[in-house]
Amino acid sequence: MTPLPTFDDVVAAARRIEGHAHKTPVLRSSTLDQRLDAQLFFKCENFQRMGAFKFRGGFNALARFDAAQRKAGALAFSSGNHAQAIALSARLQGISAVILMPIDAPQAKIDATRGYGAEVVLFDRFTQDREQLAADLARERGMTLIPPFDHPDVIAGQGTAAKELFEEVGPLDYLFVCVGGGGLISGCALSARALSPQCKVIGVEPEAGNDAQQSLRSGAIVRIATPKTIADGAQTQSVGQLTFPIMQRDVDDIVTVSDAQLVETMRFFAERMKIIVEPTGCLGAAAASLGGLPLAGKRVGVIVSGGNVDLQRFSQLVGAAP
Amino acid sequence: MTPLPTFDDVVAAARRIEGHAHKTPVLRSSTLDQRLDAQLFFKCENFQRMGAFKFRGGFNALARFDAAQRKAGALAFSSGNHAQAIALSARLQGISAVILMPIDAPQAKIDATRGYGAEVVLFDRFTQDREQLAADLARERGMTLIPPFDHPDVIAGQGTAAKELFEEVGPLDYLFVCVGGGGLISGCALSARALSPQCKVIGVEPEAGNDAQQSLRSGAIVRIATPKTIADGAQTQSVGQLTFPIMQRDVDDIVTVSDAQLVETMRFFAERMKIIVEPTGCLGAAAASLGGLPLAGKRVGVIVSGGNVDLQRFSQLVGAAP
Repeated sequence: MTPLPTFDDVVAAARRIEGHAHKTPVLRSSTLDQRLDAQLFFKCENFQRMGAFKFRGGFNALARFDAAQRKAGALAFSSGNHAQAIALSARLQGISAVILMPIDAPQAKIDATRGYGAEVVLFDRFTQDREQLAADLARERGMTLIPPFDHPDVIAGQGTAAKELFEEVGPLDYLFVCVGGGGLISGCALSARALSPQCKVIGVEPEAGNDAQQSLRSGAIVRIATPKTIADGAQTQSVGQLTFPIMQRDVDDIVTVSDAQLVETMRFFAERMKIIVEPTGCLGAAAASLGGLPLAGKRVGVIVSGGNVDLQRFSQLVGAAP
Repeated sequence: MTPLPTFDDVVAAARRIEGHAHKTPVLRSSTLDQRLDAQLFFKCENFQRMGAFKFRGGFNALARFDAAQRKAGALAFSSGNHAQAIALSARLQGISAVILMPIDAPQAKIDATRGYGAEVVLFDRFTQDREQLAADLARERGMTLIPPFDHPDVIAGQGTAAKELFEEVGPLDYLFVCVGGGGLISGCALSARALSPQCKVIGVEPEAGNDAQQSLRSGAIVRIATPKTIADGAQTQSVGQLTFPIMQRDVDDIVTVSDAQLVETMRFFAERMKIIVEPTGCLGAAAASLGGLPLAGKRVGVIVSGGNVDLQRFSQLVGAAP
């Protein structure tokens, strides 16, 4: 069995991504601090390269390739931020990349992935098994598959987001992190335990897809049907074999928020903080600001995971009066 | 005649606003750097308190009030960011404020100004002379009128934006600054001359309202009719008696951009940099990125002046496909 990554791996990842990933800014909101009588610190991964934290893990995983792996290239399947993270990281490291994307993925995402220099292989979600396809491609071409979350180098890379946050603002009482497959939260929990041991790490899922909450409460990985939510980055069906044990050990609780709360939070980010955050990126802030948790007097970190939302979609969601 | 403010006044203003104004982040764009073969540094005053650089000058002006002025209060006329800057600065300093606003100003702006604790006095733009009204109010109540740009303390306060930029990123070859009444650019030009003497300071106006360009070229202040442009913060009819001589001495050129270029820039900021910038705040970046100036190999600063745009308006402007 693959050993679980540790904070030492996060530290090593931070060295590998330095000068390649952005050290993203931490923003504040006087309005929200006053409303909650707390101090909130927003780690803005929407300003990360390619627009999301996924660049950290992708770049770190590719940076660990040996010569043979570099020559054969990297392979990923994703219709979202992981695809672009692997495509851009591969280009920056002179590695070829193949991204498997569903044939009905938005043309803009296919174009963006090709724009980063990757070869895009389209498949039919209804008639083809993407995991089988990926395994076949990996075998035929000798390429290394980088999964979107359940990989020690990906987890360690994502943990650098929280590491930077703690190093910039000091210890926190709470850290809110969105949960899809658990790569971001398990990496960030490693950093929290090392740098701010008393910090409560709270995962946040969409109400429609609380598989991680169910898993933590039942003590075994629960698999659900693909949930219907605007938080497209959290539409995973289950957490991973590596992310789950880290979450069991280092995550304090998982809470859920509604799609309406995500839209309200997206509007707050745009109106008051002047930033564009994708629905999934609003999960942590929605739970912190609307979740009714007792945050008065506390220092609260929030990972804002990404900003990749189509402007037409964004306008539909927040452009109309509430 | 009022003496012109100097860089020493900017330094003094920086001390006064410290701990009250945000030290706003400087953002980069790898995409734009590659496209222009240059290094661009965006000073993000859309993240400033109340959403625009105006807080700097407003807070500085009020911080210089003597005891009698503090007791009688501050007065401003504005339908835009200056109103909120004075309202918020006054509240923070325990000073009362009256803001004269046109009766047809957007209700949201009236509410926001009241939300900062100011008394709002409405007037009819078509039948009442706001300058006369303000003078009457100032006389009757003994209040001190803070004009939106033509005031030494306002100019010195605005100059702290460029001072912070130079102190963070070092000397620049170009600095692009939007021009309405000239308060921001004259203050920033003082900082440029002191901290990066070789830096070319370029003012940017909307095509529809190039009064500052005409003024600099003719050597005398040119007054125009209120221009029709989406850059509502640059709809001033002329530059000021204090801002003009500073601009004559310290600004290298004024260029113009179209409303279509402002929309294109607003979309770029949202899609690629994940920030919300109001149309006026896009002037500098539009000139730098679309103006055809020879920036290859250069280090280029851009002041992003503010982010106060109604989300419905924002969605109308950038939500549709280009």
